[in-house]
Amino acid sequence: MVKVSFFYPNTEGSTFDFNYYCNTHIVLSKQRLAPALKSLSVDYGLSSVMPDSKPPFHAIGHLLFDSIEAFYEAITPHIEELKEDVRNYTDVEAIIQISEVKIS
Amino acid sequence: MVKVSFFYPNTEGSTFDFNYYCNTHIVLSKQRLAPALKSLSVDYGLSSVMPDSKPPFHAIGHLLFDSIEAFYEAITPHIEELKEDVRNYTDVEAIIQISEVKIS
Repeated sequence: MVKVSFFYPNTEGSTFDFNYYCNTHIVLSKQRLAPALKSLSVDYGLSSVMPDSKPPFHAIGHLLFDSIEAFYEAITPHIEELKEDVRNYTDVEAIIQISEVKIS
Repeated sequence: MVKVSFFYPNTEGSTFDFNYYCNTHIVLSKQRLAPALKSLSVDYGLSSVMPDSKPPFHAIGHLLFDSIEAFYEAITPHIEELKEDVRNYTDVEAIIQISEVKIS
């Protein structure tokens, strides 16, 4: 299983609208990437390891696909629409990683 | 549910022994953090979003606990042992984030 993760760095002064992200962008992504998208999870950054420290990322979205090819095939027709929507919830650029899930 | 994620940055020239991480460090962590540790997953970095690009992180470990308090209580007696073991598999410092799992 392949996981595509989007990390939104919590850089100084950056903004992130978590409600828009969950209720609009994620909903749109699920619609556009179905049925290749097998599952999806969203993490909301609370802190780093010390209490009251700043979380490194505002939020992280994880999308699961059967293969890298399935991800590329699903996202290619919708990439511009999805990228354009990002400016509606954040002014940071996501760090993107494609991982193989080795232990789950 | 609270997720504690350990991101190992894939910085220029850095090393990461993925076999040691999975077969020794993760096994040790599971032993030491039981029964507070509810589940665990490990992602192996393949690439960034473009084919053949460099993954931002060598690996990412995600540990799930019922609460932040449960995580602190579980890790405190073992923190030195677990931190010392890190030098056996990597020369990078992990970025650590505590997240609330909002969608799963």
